[in-house]
Amino acid sequence: MGGVSSNPGIDIRNKKYTQRGVSSSKEDVVLAIRDLDPGVYPNAFCRIVPDILGQNPKYVNLMHADGAGSKSSLAYIYWRETQDVSVFESLAQDALVMNIDDMACVGGVQSPMLFSSCIARNKRYIPAEVIKALIHGTEKFLAEMRKLDFSMHLSGGETADLGDNVRTLVVDATATCRMPKKHVIENHIQPGDVIVGCASDGQATYEKEYNSGIASNGLSALRHDLFKKEYLHRYPESLDPHMDASLAYAGSYSLHDVLPRMGISQPLGKLALSPTRTYAPLIRDVLEQIRDQIHGIIHCSGGGQYKVLPFLKGCRAVKDQLFQAPPIFRILPDYPHPDLYHIFNMGHRLEFYTSPKGVETILDICKKYKIQGKAVGFVEASSQAEVRLILPE
Amino acid sequence: MGGVSSNPGIDIRNKKYTQRGVSSSKEDVVLAIRDLDPGVYPNAFCRIVPDILGQNPKYVNLMHADGAGSKSSLAYIYWRETQDVSVFESLAQDALVMNIDDMACVGGVQSPMLFSSCIARNKRYIPAEVIKALIHGTEKFLAEMRKLDFSMHLSGGETADLGDNVRTLVVDATATCRMPKKHVIENHIQPGDVIVGCASDGQATYEKEYNSGIASNGLSALRHDLFKKEYLHRYPESLDPHMDASLAYAGSYSLHDVLPRMGISQPLGKLALSPTRTYAPLIRDVLEQIRDQIHGIIHCSGGGQYKVLPFLKGCRAVKDQLFQAPPIFRILPDYPHPDLYHIFNMGHRLEFYTSPKGVETILDICKKYKIQGKAVGFVEASSQAEVRLILPE
Repeated sequence: MGGVSSNPGIDIRNKKYTQRGVSSSKEDVVLAIRDLDPGVYPNAFCRIVPDILGQNPKYVNLMHADGAGSKSSLAYIYWRETQDVSVFESLAQDALVMNIDDMACVGGVQSPMLFSSCIARNKRYIPAEVIKALIHGTEKFLAEMRKLDFSMHLSGGETADLGDNVRTLVVDATATCRMPKKHVIENHIQPGDVIVGCASDGQATYEKEYNSGIASNGLSALRHDLFKKEYLHRYPESLDPHMDASLAYAGSYSLHDVLPRMGISQPLGKLALSPTRTYAPLIRDVLEQIRDQIHGIIHCSGGGQYKVLPFLKGCRAVKDQLFQAPPIFRILPDYPHPDLYHIFNMGHRLEFYTSPKGVETILDICKKYKIQGKAVGFVEASSQAEVRLILPE
Repeated sequence: MGGVSSNPGIDIRNKKYTQRGVSSSKEDVVLAIRDLDPGVYPNAFCRIVPDILGQNPKYVNLMHADGAGSKSSLAYIYWRETQDVSVFESLAQDALVMNIDDMACVGGVQSPMLFSSCIARNKRYIPAEVIKALIHGTEKFLAEMRKLDFSMHLSGGETADLGDNVRTLVVDATATCRMPKKHVIENHIQPGDVIVGCASDGQATYEKEYNSGIASNGLSALRHDLFKKEYLHRYPESLDPHMDASLAYAGSYSLHDVLPRMGISQPLGKLALSPTRTYAPLIRDVLEQIRDQIHGIIHCSGGGQYKVLPFLKGCRAVKDQLFQAPPIFRILPDYPHPDLYHIFNMGHRLEFYTSPKGVETILDICKKYKIQGKAVGFVEASSQAEVRLILPE
């Protein structure tokens, strides 16, 4: 439809999201923690603290927590339907990459990273084989990253039986990194910058199959919007019982449905559980080759295509050449509603803000990893920070 | 009654625990992860990995995750009853100390520590003021530790809205520490060692009021055994709806009840929410003064007085001079059942295994901090590793 969307976009779509007890931007939490020390690089994508761990004035520390979010509810019902426990290995990757890619945006990707996992389960529904798959998946993904020459290691983790607190499963990970200050990328996005987006879907050279691009944000919306009412009755433990029943599993699909006209053979449940792609190899190459051209790196996670907003000072990001939305997003009942861009990445989950002469190198590196790259927009001066999207046809 | 209890003790008491969906020893998880690399010091109290973060062969890293467990359900109902949001500050301390004291047991207490928190909430029940109290409590506790000359710093954290996964609230923390190898305490418990216990209750010099000693283990058992049925009806969101109703809030107390004959003015709900005491100051002093005498340090968390069992090789720990159980444990309906010692600390949450000549120094240091210390038992040779408790009169 080629609409125009400016921030903030609160309407019917976002209200539905809120009524499901989630929010894409966590406004109240942001207010609650606004007095916290912003760290030594206030405009960095994630908080950076002095080198507590090494006491070296030339270094800084990152310690970062994130998780697979409500994707674990979807993994749970998919596993119950198919007995395919490997979806929990994929869920472990989700929790790890949500940390890795945030830390990569500040340049942490060039330093060793240490990880710890934190799993809370309801033992009634989640047996040891699931925990085993989660831990095995964590080890396996980090081993794959080591093959790509990253120094990423699991330190340990905690599994807690919390049936009174947890309906099924919560999977989180924490990462620590000690990095030289000279590697730090703080966002200094400026008029004249080109925005290069890196596709969230497809199959990168280091991925084993097609990735739908869904990642780990908006999964509550997607699960309830796509999948049908029978899951409400079969797996009441997979959702908040107080959710308005009309909003719960309100879609028309089965987890087993295949969408042949999209040329994808994976069933829809599996597509929705595609592991969060890491952009770490790509970010590392870009920093090694054209660090000086890079004025910002944004991981479009919670908040979708508006994620960059808090990092814009006196400028407007205009994205007028966005990717076509990948198939997983095109079957959402609200598609192509502009508010979907607040909740999902809708096509690219990583963007570089670069001087124009950096563009070609970034696109070459994208090609190397078989990730589609594209100049999706530009930055212009503006009295007020703003993100403006021109939605694709 | 002065009974004798040997491991393992599975009977009615433990069955009740299991039926509530928790376990004090997490047997199935232990089996699921037994193939994991045990780290560079296999007999250390927690996993130690090489110095990934600093690449210095003289250093090692710890990264450790733990949380407040089901104590958050109790904090929730107490807050709803009293509007006293400060109980969440105390809950933040629980999550931190569960990490600090584990890491202190391997000697990490002499090195800087970096923390990150991980909070998952159901937004329907947990508003921003609770998140604010949790984060404020985290900052406040670490500031208090810094006053005691510990280098402990918050790096950041994540708050996730997970209404489909979480009934009310899950509060976890992760800690990272980089320490010199020469500071590492690996357990080498041996016949002839004296076991010195450090009381879990009372008021240490660095505590603001009487601490019941409950800490963060066994809270599901305690909550349902002490508190009465009305909470089941008023706060059904505070427990697993599939729990056998006869086991849920099956006690006789109100959160507001005061037990004057015990000489304690805090209401029972507050007592049950006493923040987990840290033994870090005491452990640091002991290591600074008599490191060579110390053959093991055990944090009696999950598994209670049997926590030491996996660290015993060819010996038996006999605890024949245990503390009288503090008041909070004496009002449990099953008291003085021996199985309580598998679930709760029952009087001391920290124990040193020391050569006899170290005992006096440890007791002196306990006195300095106004924590009751006591030689609670001894270690003797045994073909099979065993913990034997002679329960107090």
